[in-house]
Amino acid sequence: MNDLQSYCRLIRHAIITSTTEAGSGHPSSSLSAVELVTALFFGGFLRYFPDNPDHPNNDRFILSKGHAAPLLYAAWAVAGAIPFEELNTLRKFTSNLEGHPTKNFPYTEVATGSLGQGLSVGVGMALNAKFLDKLPYTTYVLLGDSEMAEGSNWEAIQLAAYYKLSNLVGIIDVNRLGQRGETMYGSDVSAFAERVQAFGWHVICVDGHSLDEITQAYATIKCSEIAMPHMIIASTRKGKGVSIMEDKDGWHGKALSKEQSEAALKVLGDVDTSLRGELAVPEDIKPASYDPEPDDFEEENSKDKMSTREAYGHALVKLHDSVPDMVVLDAEMSNSTFAAEFKKVYPERFFEMFIAEQNMVGVAVGLAARGKVPYISTFGSFFTRAVDQIRVAQYSQSHINCIGSHVGVSIGQDGATQMGLEDMAIFRAILDSVVLYPADRVASERLVKVMATQESMCYMRISKMEVEQLYTDTEEFHIGGSKVLRTSSNDSVTIVAAGVTLYEALKAHEDLAKQDISVRVIDAYSVKPIDTKTLQDAARETKALIIVEDHFAEGGLGDAVRSALSDRPVRIYSLAVRKMPHSGTPEELLDFEEISAKHIVKKVTDIISRM
Amino acid sequence: MNDLQSYCRLIRHAIITSTTEAGSGHPSSSLSAVELVTALFFGGFLRYFPDNPDHPNNDRFILSKGHAAPLLYAAWAVAGAIPFEELNTLRKFTSNLEGHPTKNFPYTEVATGSLGQGLSVGVGMALNAKFLDKLPYTTYVLLGDSEMAEGSNWEAIQLAAYYKLSNLVGIIDVNRLGQRGETMYGSDVSAFAERVQAFGWHVICVDGHSLDEITQAYATIKCSEIAMPHMIIASTRKGKGVSIMEDKDGWHGKALSKEQSEAALKVLGDVDTSLRGELAVPEDIKPASYDPEPDDFEEENSKDKMSTREAYGHALVKLHDSVPDMVVLDAEMSNSTFAAEFKKVYPERFFEMFIAEQNMVGVAVGLAARGKVPYISTFGSFFTRAVDQIRVAQYSQSHINCIGSHVGVSIGQDGATQMGLEDMAIFRAILDSVVLYPADRVASERLVKVMATQESMCYMRISKMEVEQLYTDTEEFHIGGSKVLRTSSNDSVTIVAAGVTLYEALKAHEDLAKQDISVRVIDAYSVKPIDTKTLQDAARETKALIIVEDHFAEGGLGDAVRSALSDRPVRIYSLAVRKMPHSGTPEELLDFEEISAKHIVKKVTDIISRM
Repeated sequence: MNDLQSYCRLIRHAIITSTTEAGSGHPSSSLSAVELVTALFFGGFLRYFPDNPDHPNNDRFILSKGHAAPLLYAAWAVAGAIPFEELNTLRKFTSNLEGHPTKNFPYTEVATGSLGQGLSVGVGMALNAKFLDKLPYTTYVLLGDSEMAEGSNWEAIQLAAYYKLSNLVGIIDVNRLGQRGETMYGSDVSAFAERVQAFGWHVICVDGHSLDEITQAYATIKCSEIAMPHMIIASTRKGKGVSIMEDKDGWHGKALSKEQSEAALKVLGDVDTSLRGELAVPEDIKPASYDPEPDDFEEENSKDKMSTREAYGHALVKLHDSVPDMVVLDAEMSNSTFAAEFKKVYPERFFEMFIAEQNMVGVAVGLAARGKVPYISTFGSFFTRAVDQIRVAQYSQSHINCIGSHVGVSIGQDGATQMGLEDMAIFRAILDSVVLYPADRVASERLVKVMATQESMCYMRISKMEVEQLYTDTEEFHIGGSKVLRTSSNDSVTIVAAGVTLYEALKAHEDLAKQDISVRVIDAYSVKPIDTKTLQDAARETKALIIVEDHFAEGGLGDAVRSALSDRPVRIYSLAVRKMPHSGTPEELLDFEEISAKHIVKKVTDIISRM
Repeated sequence: MNDLQSYCRLIRHAIITSTTEAGSGHPSSSLSAVELVTALFFGGFLRYFPDNPDHPNNDRFILSKGHAAPLLYAAWAVAGAIPFEELNTLRKFTSNLEGHPTKNFPYTEVATGSLGQGLSVGVGMALNAKFLDKLPYTTYVLLGDSEMAEGSNWEAIQLAAYYKLSNLVGIIDVNRLGQRGETMYGSDVSAFAERVQAFGWHVICVDGHSLDEITQAYATIKCSEIAMPHMIIASTRKGKGVSIMEDKDGWHGKALSKEQSEAALKVLGDVDTSLRGELAVPEDIKPASYDPEPDDFEEENSKDKMSTREAYGHALVKLHDSVPDMVVLDAEMSNSTFAAEFKKVYPERFFEMFIAEQNMVGVAVGLAARGKVPYISTFGSFFTRAVDQIRVAQYSQSHINCIGSHVGVSIGQDGATQMGLEDMAIFRAILDSVVLYPADRVASERLVKVMATQESMCYMRISKMEVEQLYTDTEEFHIGGSKVLRTSSNDSVTIVAAGVTLYEALKAHEDLAKQDISVRVIDAYSVKPIDTKTLQDAARETKALIIVEDHFAEGGLGDAVRSALSDRPVRIYSLAVRKMPHSGTPEELLDFEEISAKHIVKKVTDIISRM
């Protein structure tokens, strides 16, 4: 215990010093959790090879309250993982110790800082340990009390209980104060305890500054055979150990001045900055080997028409042999997205996430961090539920594959709320993302496979409508590619389309041919990156481009094409969803939104007549 | 009770008939809740003037499980609000009875169909009744059991308890089956009861097909003086009354065939389609008059520099007199967004939503539906948490004003997770949305006011950095406008910027002038709609446009400008955030991302050298 107290003092010293040196940061939110982290790291609980952060059997520690980054860095410095002096580079441009933890710091599991995301990631890692890698590691997640207001945490809590993840330990640092005052429940630890317990967790309440109580709680959990996830709920004081900020409002996200810092360090007393603590050593074991015995599955019938969503389901099944690390997650939509096909054959690699998309994305990020290749699918419209998780995943450099079905007005009768009409805008805005939009069975199947080997986030948009096969079974598709489906030596204009509108473009091509008007038709199945070369050729060789997309006018294929050609003087016209969509047949709606063959023909003839 | 049973049979008849006629829809999910809705509507509980859906003292009924739309339409038909025959237009192109309810049907409170949103809207309406209009109306929300997995519902549940909304009644239709099988808790009503109770609600469990038990529950709540919101948790059977689908998997979202329908109607027995039920009559009273006694507030000091976020806070206070219906919501960020300024003066019109952005947007939609003008603010990055709610708000034709602060890499040290870098992409993709991006104090204040009178969703992006005042206090700003800040008779190229990059553009202008290069500088403060005319002039009069934005390269100002000029042959170059951002000073980061004055100068000279 004496040792632990020394570590606590050293870590407090580091938190104060590094934030004052940075001139900003979150000392108060770091100080409240010093005992919670110190006891975990140096009380013999966290098992970790510091030389090998990626060891598959390390325990995982996720700082969901990412603003307490100074505490995370200080703890790892005391563990000897980084030089102690490096702490004073906090928040500097060239430092890996950012304001909120990112993957630049090798002991960060995932980027955090948007609150309410860490527990979902932890659920993913705990699922991996229990059901996939079958390793005895434990996943710890440190949460703030303010962030418990995020519904995403309750999605994670319910799912962890459902899967009986007794290898998951949450720790809530109830320091009473949020950013702008008291949290919803203030210092009422029992409010949290009752709620978490009602959701099916094993709960232990502790004084978060009593090393005795904390180590006792960790020890109890370690020996526990309760088939429930565990939550330690700790009553703490924000700014603990620095009297001018301790339990006082107005100190969120504020560093002490040099003078205040000196005074605080004086009260803290002398520390030995060469002091180092030891982490417990994990068993050096590897993930369970995986030797699936697939249930029987029938090849799909050779149908005349097939939707790209159905092709997605079949592709998942076919992909498994070459990508055994793949995992499929569903948000209660698997019969519509056809992900259910995969579940039928490989049920042990399929996880039902229920209608909780935020948590689904977080779990996928956790699985990806443990080496899995997640394919997660729901309606394209419902990925909008998880945009913050998707956004933060890019900062975790997470390779997750998101597949959104039922996109566009072409879904028909279900109406606007079910239509994915902004999905491309959202996924295009992610750094280094890949956005794909297959038109037929072959393209859908090929692109599912192509996604498996990417390094950044992929999104594929798939459709409800059954459509004819356009491509032969041997056709190749690649990231950044496109297909010129119709061309001649005298193409007047170029039609760029993808997915269902490609069929409209082909119909328009046929109709225009009857009027002796020849147009080029490009299948822009890779929306990001887009095939700039092919578009540039079209811009040079034809007089204008018309982009047709079953998506709102902003952020989608139109913007992608205009961006690719912005340094050339070419006229570009866009047909997209611009009127309030509603229920109707697919054909009525494509026509109403002026993205049907009829409207393409009209646009082409208008353009030609003005030439 | 006999009457209620007759209404139930008639409503079941209508559900079966209308969905079979449509050939699609959700009879099974509608049938499970027939008794719950019938007892509410025709048991003397729902108080409503059917001739005046907008009466301020009507009780409100929100169908959160929006796929049960056939039930909603049938209930209103039996109430005499629409002709009974109209039910058979369900899901047709010209019908107001869409697959999921929208505002085209006048008895829809808000569009639903993306699950887990109705309760938040209900919280907004109940807050309005209790704290703003001070009216005795009750808000009822019918929820599905599957959608209780959405964290957003738990955000709404916790907030309703916090504000002790005893005028809010939730009803969970626990029909056991979700879309693709059993829900997380199956038929375990107690699982829901324990969780909701732990969150501080008054809970009553009933047999959802017993009219006796249901009416007893509504009556108990009506007389209750418990200062808690109420939840009725009803055990039901999906497809109730139609034996081939009742409590059977595989019937989600499927209509009966003509033959199946005929058989089902036969079992149901004869119904009298001319039967009409009566709703209870509300008191015909008006909202409380509002006569605020503002607390003292100090005008801001005339500072040399001010951030647009600080100006936003001051503008809210100043706006109140001319827009007394305004309400300000905060997600625990009010000291950073400066919304706290408003709270200081008008605390009774300010509501703390805690860190739960999904619910915040839902509450705003509820308030807007009751005639309020909500201003809701958090970091721009954290609006990504609520994109589904934002998306669905457009289908409710909801005028809410969202203000996102701390946008761009220019926030500096806090790092990437805190930087709003995709916010414009998201809000631009909303139909008829307005996206604003003021550069200085004056613009920020004016645009806050301009938003108040819009009819569709507005988003304003504001910055952390303190900047100099660019405009005089009398300068006017309007939706769709821009300002040409620098121009001459021989401008070589045009720089289009907004917000912090406008200052970089002005610096670049100065530096280039020293090299005898004259450039035009446009402040594109209205990103959507954008000032096409001014951009067209620039396209004609200068040789190229350079767009500079502190936002990712996709979906923002660059795409907006390219889209506006896509039918003209002009070269457009874009400087935007293209590298993984991290911690550092604002200046270091603007430079790193190549959106600083230095990089603008370089781009201009590059372009000129190639002319």
